[in-house]
Amino acid sequence: MDEFDLISRYFEPLQLADGDIKLGIGDDAAIVDLSGDHAITTAVDTLVEGVHFPTGMEAGAVGYRSLAVNLSDFAAIGATPRYATLALALPAVDQKWLEAFSVGLGQALRAADISLIGGDTCQGALTITIQLIGTIDGAPMARQGAKPGDTLLVSGTLGDARAGLELMKQPGGIDTGHSKALVERFMRPQARLTLGVEARCYANAAIDVSDGLLADVGHVMTSSGCSAEIEVDRLPISREIQAVFGCERALAYALAGGDDYELVLSVSPKYLDRVMRISSDVSVPLTVVGRVRTGAGVVCLDSKGQELPLGSKGYRHFT
Amino acid sequence: MDEFDLISRYFEPLQLADGDIKLGIGDDAAIVDLSGDHAITTAVDTLVEGVHFPTGMEAGAVGYRSLAVNLSDFAAIGATPRYATLALALPAVDQKWLEAFSVGLGQALRAADISLIGGDTCQGALTITIQLIGTIDGAPMARQGAKPGDTLLVSGTLGDARAGLELMKQPGGIDTGHSKALVERFMRPQARLTLGVEARCYANAAIDVSDGLLADVGHVMTSSGCSAEIEVDRLPISREIQAVFGCERALAYALAGGDDYELVLSVSPKYLDRVMRISSDVSVPLTVVGRVRTGAGVVCLDSKGQELPLGSKGYRHFT
Repeated sequence: MDEFDLISRYFEPLQLADGDIKLGIGDDAAIVDLSGDHAITTAVDTLVEGVHFPTGMEAGAVGYRSLAVNLSDFAAIGATPRYATLALALPAVDQKWLEAFSVGLGQALRAADISLIGGDTCQGALTITIQLIGTIDGAPMARQGAKPGDTLLVSGTLGDARAGLELMKQPGGIDTGHSKALVERFMRPQARLTLGVEARCYANAAIDVSDGLLADVGHVMTSSGCSAEIEVDRLPISREIQAVFGCERALAYALAGGDDYELVLSVSPKYLDRVMRISSDVSVPLTVVGRVRTGAGVVCLDSKGQELPLGSKGYRHFT
Repeated sequence: MDEFDLISRYFEPLQLADGDIKLGIGDDAAIVDLSGDHAITTAVDTLVEGVHFPTGMEAGAVGYRSLAVNLSDFAAIGATPRYATLALALPAVDQKWLEAFSVGLGQALRAADISLIGGDTCQGALTITIQLIGTIDGAPMARQGAKPGDTLLVSGTLGDARAGLELMKQPGGIDTGHSKALVERFMRPQARLTLGVEARCYANAAIDVSDGLLADVGHVMTSSGCSAEIEVDRLPISREIQAVFGCERALAYALAGGDDYELVLSVSPKYLDRVMRISSDVSVPLTVVGRVRTGAGVVCLDSKGQELPLGSKGYRHFT
């Protein structure tokens, strides 16, 4: 039983039949219709030291990253965050650590123009839970909307954060400019909020890449009842990761590394030009990486269109 | 530095100047004006095994209690909860535990007529963070509204939950009907939601008793710039706690035990009758326990009006 089985078995039954719930358990964020003009959006993410980031990671990065991974959930449905709450369990009060954490969190809050409005602090293993509240105008990009014939696009580059995480684990692993850039991708992910909001009307489905490209595209295909083909030669891979890890590891991290917090968009061919213009307008590169087919599952194709054997299915807790 | 210093030093600076924030960091819940008809209310609470409840407490009670303590924050400002998200860190997947946890959480959700709408599950030390979203019509009962001359009222009885916690720690401590009732008060607190909503227009200030009566009344007085007198002979103390622990311990637990999740209301004399009628209508007993004065601090008076020396100031993390 992995985390997805666990959620569907024990927690989906706790969601009521309620017409005001527009998007509920199982997507990146939830949407409820609580009042007049806007639907209310919410998302929550927990980061545990030693699970979601290495023990001893600098506190500023812990603060920044804790918000960024939540912002990415909002980006994935095209919602605008407004407010955050923080639930923080700390083993002890370390003022230097708290000061740096607060600065890092503050940088991420200001970059997204949102305010902390409350929270809860207690003693415990270092665990940071941030909840966002915001709004969305109109229908979200959800996981279940992909259609056969859609083009699959991904923002930015893939695999860098996982590469950075590997470097953080190696003593003396962070020595070059390339290494630093990769580590920064892990420590301070850049949620694609503007892209998400602008692309919302034109993408049939979207997800942010947290578990790994193959796993997250797989989630979209399962929800949509379709299959996907990924052309591995097209994957956007940074110079940095190739320089430090070589092509083969770079490709493995791009397919299954996780922690990218890039967006995957499933776009009908009729909106492809429009979405590429948005990509240019918001200065976030988008790369075509594959297409949606009928059927089920995700396959990877090489440059000759031959199916490649799949390795890792991405990160799953409890497996 | 305790949790209150920590919050004011490191996290209050992260709250923006934003006219849409109607109630922010430092109160029981936050209120933001996000859209048309209703203001949106949110509250978050984390429970850590071994800190907020004894290691090994039955999973159904963990689920129930995790929601109840949040509901109590809503009760304290007079807001109506609608939706909840759950962030759950688990050391491992124990299906029997999860099944019981889900049942307990579901009971608490149904009792309050609210729906789970999302969450996050990961591996880590057992930590449950629940966030509520709901609405409030009009001004909240906040901590800063108490006025000299107000009467202080408390709902239900005090000290039972702390007594129950003590019994849970003793091998063979839960042997009589009285003991069971006390333990139940700890495991399944009853948030005073209806009382909070109905009293909202008539109380100048309110708080729910989580840290202990003296500590929580102290929070209200600090926020309001007033002092409080508590008449200890008037404190509502259950038959059960007196039978099991005797008067002296019962009084200590009532003043400083914490985990009661009863409401303290600060009510102007002109609304006292009205509030007592509400108490009767919603079948939640209210007891007059003291009054608000000018000055600062909280004093306890004996039956002759003599000041008693204060002991514990309630539960604080990190002290």
